[in-house]
Amino acid sequence: MQIGIVGLGLIGGSLALDLKAQGNLVWGLSRSRDTCEIAVSIGAVDTALTQLEDIPQLAQTDLVIVCTPITAVVPTVQLLAAHLPAPTIITDVASVKGAIVQSAQAIYPRFIGSHPMAGKEVQGIKGAQRDLFRHRPCVVCPSEDVAALTLVRSLWTGLGMQVYECDPHTHDQAVAWISHLPVMLGASLIHACNQESDSTVQYFAQKLASSGFRDTTRVGGGNPELGRLMAQFNRKALQTALSQYQAQLDHLAQLINQENWSAVQNYLEKAQKWRSLFFVESNL
Amino acid sequence: MQIGIVGLGLIGGSLALDLKAQGNLVWGLSRSRDTCEIAVSIGAVDTALTQLEDIPQLAQTDLVIVCTPITAVVPTVQLLAAHLPAPTIITDVASVKGAIVQSAQAIYPRFIGSHPMAGKEVQGIKGAQRDLFRHRPCVVCPSEDVAALTLVRSLWTGLGMQVYECDPHTHDQAVAWISHLPVMLGASLIHACNQESDSTVQYFAQKLASSGFRDTTRVGGGNPELGRLMAQFNRKALQTALSQYQAQLDHLAQLINQENWSAVQNYLEKAQKWRSLFFVESNL
Repeated sequence: MQIGIVGLGLIGGSLALDLKAQGNLVWGLSRSRDTCEIAVSIGAVDTALTQLEDIPQLAQTDLVIVCTPITAVVPTVQLLAAHLPAPTIITDVASVKGAIVQSAQAIYPRFIGSHPMAGKEVQGIKGAQRDLFRHRPCVVCPSEDVAALTLVRSLWTGLGMQVYECDPHTHDQAVAWISHLPVMLGASLIHACNQESDSTVQYFAQKLASSGFRDTTRVGGGNPELGRLMAQFNRKALQTALSQYQAQLDHLAQLINQENWSAVQNYLEKAQKWRSLFFVESNL
Repeated sequence: MQIGIVGLGLIGGSLALDLKAQGNLVWGLSRSRDTCEIAVSIGAVDTALTQLEDIPQLAQTDLVIVCTPITAVVPTVQLLAAHLPAPTIITDVASVKGAIVQSAQAIYPRFIGSHPMAGKEVQGIKGAQRDLFRHRPCVVCPSEDVAALTLVRSLWTGLGMQVYECDPHTHDQAVAWISHLPVMLGASLIHACNQESDSTVQYFAQKLASSGFRDTTRVGGGNPELGRLMAQFNRKALQTALSQYQAQLDHLAQLINQENWSAVQNYLEKAQKWRSLFFVESNL
């Protein structure tokens, strides 16, 4: 296939590496000339340019994957719609779907909303790696265009992902819990630790931080722009999740204040048990 | 050296594996006969028994490492003090130090408080593994017994740990931030997700949970007894940390409610920057 990737950051770059390795012809589009050069030099793309209309293979492109920040997805679809031939399929990778899918499909009916659930705390093309998506879950949103949906599903399964079909609204509520809320909570943990006024305690907190702290704060210490956009474009679902989380935390704090240790242990036992519901399959 | 390990769980078992591999003679003590058999069969110990007085090498032991739950450390030191010859050194691995070190030293002056900061979410001898401690930080508490302190320090550095000397009170405040608070926060996240009343959203939340959710909840979904004991024996420091965390989270929730996106981004940028203060050395 001939595949275009718009936005050559961590996700776009990693996708490009895998798709090139599968034998596809891959072009990339990035605002940054440096990024384009890196993408070519690491073998992620055959061509990378900063202007869409300069891409020679544009008319022969089968599929374009929009890997820009959330705010740029719909404008990018608009731009692509003006230049692509009708059979080309477009998908995206954004972590919210409600704010994107309907608008994008109204502009370009062969748009299929996707959300591959993969990432790491580094940003940019320099963090790109092979197999970032393997064994991870991916959402595709329903569409009446069965051929487009089938092609996009096969894109993700071909990268080793477990694909789930899920409507945009349900997706946004689900990821508020398991992806957007964890960012807010990890960031707040870092802020809280930074409030320690005793510099000796602060020093040892920093030195003794080990795998537990590292893991708990990993997504909270990630890309700030991405975190802000998650909150902005999935505000209502995130607010609901945050309120529920605050209520649960308040309850636990109260049990500790009451020195009700059997209730604290019971709370932690339930957490241990319920966590296993989330990791029953290949996504552990 | 001849080394005794009391409590053959994840930590005791992993320690035993490493110390045996270094060529030490290692005996183990466990309440469970099954655990003793497993410890011998995986080559973690030379002998493992359920009664201290039955251990033939007792009088020749150079060092005993108490790896029991927090509540059993001081009673174990009491038991050991009645059976060990005076030169034997005792240390522990408990995640609180204030509630232990002074009492244990009053019973047995050659007791040195330690806290190797390592673990994983599984429990018990079956989770034991080599090199669990390598590149992790470890606290030893000050003592006037310089020879004992030196031996215990060299125990941990010999396992590849970065050793810090820190008084019990400071240790407890520091670990409240970076170890005990993350447990409470991760557990509350799991509880919050479990409150979702729409079963379709719940289903997708479980299916889409990926590395971000897994990492954020890892310690929160860990050993419930250990979590409870952390809260119980480090209550005041944990309460302070929890309150500060709640205040930070409330502030972030307020920024989201106000749709003050530049302030949200600024908050996340600070989190990203401050997180790097915790992982400047070998503990990333």
